[in-house]
Amino acid sequence: MSIKLNTHYLESFIQPHEFERIAPEVRMADDMLRSKTGAGNDFLGWVDLPDRYDREEFARIQACAEKIRKTCQVLVVIGIGGSYLGARAVIEFLKSPNYNLLPKETPNIYFAGNSISSDALTEILSLCEGKDVCVNVISKSGTTTEPAVAFRVFRNLLEEKYGKEGARERIFVTTDRARGTLKQFSTDAGYETFVVPDDVGGRFSVLTAVGLLPIAAAGIDILKLMEGAAAASHAYTSTDLDRNDCYKYAAIRNLLYRKGKSVEILAGYEPFAAMFHEWWKQLYGESEGKDGKGVYPASVIFSTDLHSLGQFIQDGNRILFETVIDIADTHRRFAIPNDPANIDGLNFLSGKELDDVKKTAMLGTVLAHVDGGVPNTVIEVSERSEFALGELIYFFELACAVSGYVLSVNPFDQPGVESYKKNMFALLGKPGYESMRAELAKRLNY
Amino acid sequence: MSIKLNTHYLESFIQPHEFERIAPEVRMADDMLRSKTGAGNDFLGWVDLPDRYDREEFARIQACAEKIRKTCQVLVVIGIGGSYLGARAVIEFLKSPNYNLLPKETPNIYFAGNSISSDALTEILSLCEGKDVCVNVISKSGTTTEPAVAFRVFRNLLEEKYGKEGARERIFVTTDRARGTLKQFSTDAGYETFVVPDDVGGRFSVLTAVGLLPIAAAGIDILKLMEGAAAASHAYTSTDLDRNDCYKYAAIRNLLYRKGKSVEILAGYEPFAAMFHEWWKQLYGESEGKDGKGVYPASVIFSTDLHSLGQFIQDGNRILFETVIDIADTHRRFAIPNDPANIDGLNFLSGKELDDVKKTAMLGTVLAHVDGGVPNTVIEVSERSEFALGELIYFFELACAVSGYVLSVNPFDQPGVESYKKNMFALLGKPGYESMRAELAKRLNY
Repeated sequence: MSIKLNTHYLESFIQPHEFERIAPEVRMADDMLRSKTGAGNDFLGWVDLPDRYDREEFARIQACAEKIRKTCQVLVVIGIGGSYLGARAVIEFLKSPNYNLLPKETPNIYFAGNSISSDALTEILSLCEGKDVCVNVISKSGTTTEPAVAFRVFRNLLEEKYGKEGARERIFVTTDRARGTLKQFSTDAGYETFVVPDDVGGRFSVLTAVGLLPIAAAGIDILKLMEGAAAASHAYTSTDLDRNDCYKYAAIRNLLYRKGKSVEILAGYEPFAAMFHEWWKQLYGESEGKDGKGVYPASVIFSTDLHSLGQFIQDGNRILFETVIDIADTHRRFAIPNDPANIDGLNFLSGKELDDVKKTAMLGTVLAHVDGGVPNTVIEVSERSEFALGELIYFFELACAVSGYVLSVNPFDQPGVESYKKNMFALLGKPGYESMRAELAKRLNY
Repeated sequence: MSIKLNTHYLESFIQPHEFERIAPEVRMADDMLRSKTGAGNDFLGWVDLPDRYDREEFARIQACAEKIRKTCQVLVVIGIGGSYLGARAVIEFLKSPNYNLLPKETPNIYFAGNSISSDALTEILSLCEGKDVCVNVISKSGTTTEPAVAFRVFRNLLEEKYGKEGARERIFVTTDRARGTLKQFSTDAGYETFVVPDDVGGRFSVLTAVGLLPIAAAGIDILKLMEGAAAASHAYTSTDLDRNDCYKYAAIRNLLYRKGKSVEILAGYEPFAAMFHEWWKQLYGESEGKDGKGVYPASVIFSTDLHSLGQFIQDGNRILFETVIDIADTHRRFAIPNDPANIDGLNFLSGKELDDVKKTAMLGTVLAHVDGGVPNTVIEVSERSEFALGELIYFFELACAVSGYVLSVNPFDQPGVESYKKNMFALLGKPGYESMRAELAKRLNY
């Protein structure tokens, strides 16, 4: 395994007998998941996805990515929420948060349709000027407002630039297998389509075509990503907490939640992981934040945020616990140069590798935060690689499902996401929402 | 004023008499601040900074920025925490989060020295290859590890590329006025220097040379920024809560905190504001997170995060309140195109401006979240401009100081930031930390 849970720094916060007491709940959650008897059991397609994914479609994804790389300098990926965060997280983690700035043989990738901002949309349009463009639109229904508006805009752009025939070769649609207006329209228009599976929710969909097509277009080895996920799916099957790091993490967060720790901070030391933390926030926030319950998921990237939220974590309101991701081998090594003038007094570090300083900062920070009363769990990741990231993705998905069942929520629905949409449609005058509109307008008209 | 506090949606959460009861505390906080009798009163230089800033240095900043724009294609800004977040926040807010990708007449700006990541550092080095480079290093002491290491690296790069003489024309140092090794070294080396004032803490320093030099280098009108801040400093002087939006915001967050709301989410609808929210998180987290107290500051950018943390906000653990920034006029307008096929069913929006949809989404979301039990305060900002942002910066700084005094903490220190540093130095074998090192090593050696 590329990842290992280090619970050494929890010893003053959780006693061994507490793990014993919660173990039966974890076993029950495991049983609900494996026997598909729990809430949301229509959405368990991600569980054995790394072994049972559609090989034929996978090969089409790889071929399509190759075609995109050959055809265009810009790939516009249109999607929101789970149809956006996973792909972006993986590309930034494995390539770079500055992916678009770096010289490379793969296209620039811009994510559109994830806001309602005119400035954001027009800026992506300007970045496409004079470039050859492909589009991957990702939407199960095809009717979600943000991506639908963006698809209108970029479909127009491609049809004006390349004609309907030419655009057909540049538009790739990831949507429902059979139903929905987008699927129907794509079939009629002759677009190549990929599948958002029925039994995999958005936030669990990064290892389906939803995430894999943009990820492959960026030149990432998606087979290794799947192999890592498969390794994790085989490793985390025991219901013995001492033999299953994944379930142990699920147990820890519930134990701490029951002690009043209501915010979990996912802490990392690598800027390339920032979007991965955002993916994690959706996964846990949307899965567990319901029925008035749940741990609020927050994120920091140290050491920059040690000089920002570090003070609060060390010494503020004691509602926090931290989960630290410690990635050992990254892509590059760098030795700190000597300075004859030693103006910063850091010559005791001369010749030392920056990675060693990072590791030491991590250990020093964990001890300091533990002393400050913040429970710390460390997830040790051996390297920055496709395989390790595949493992990590599956680790968090599985832990999330088990943790949600232990919390006794349905980890696979998101009923609250509809509330703002209904209000928005009513206020926008969508047919069918007339009575609701009048009521809302009254509340706004103060 | 460009900004206005809308408290209409708080009515079911805070009764009028609660404002009356907390008003004396706000008056006392105001008095501590204005008479400089409160804790941390050595750090109140930011209060009248917008009126009393050093005009001579300001002109030098503008001239230096002009020189940078003429001399280089890349400006590397070295700093961490308050010496990093403010400049980046303002540049992204007023220019773009994609500033470096866009065609422009100003240099690309890369922020270094804010992590201990080899991959991040070597990537910035690679982005500098073949480009003309200037450096602005920002550090009061010159001894903070992260920026000091980066300064070693980039000083070497410039001296190798341009010689010591050439490098002298390309290195700009923002540091202590008189003390510290970096100041001494800069004087000896002949670098142009700017001042980190003694009486302005890092997180309040964006409107000093710390933030202004990189901001001006990006082509932003820093005079308008200061004028906006000055307007705010003149506007928010009343201790009558009904006549002072800034103090009212300070009162609201304390009232909600005392009702058990322990997480404040700053919510926005514009991706260009994401780093501004990070600046806000440092300001509030570092000012108030002490003595076991404080509201944990979190951030979301809607609508993307409505499809991520939206579920939690709507229906999860009721420990949250939201402060929504609603920016009316942004740079561009965009009308939603009609689609004869209407595959997304959105033709009822055809021709409508995206900004109107954004506004409606905002209102619909506020009502939905209020219905879900989340107190919402809306800060209405009239436009995306230097002046309005200057106001907003000052609004949040002043509110933070008053809010911190009402919470009875010292809003201007950050003792907790030292804890990890001490551990790190001990573990790294810094001379003078030997006994501490042995003790820490024992705790790690499990």
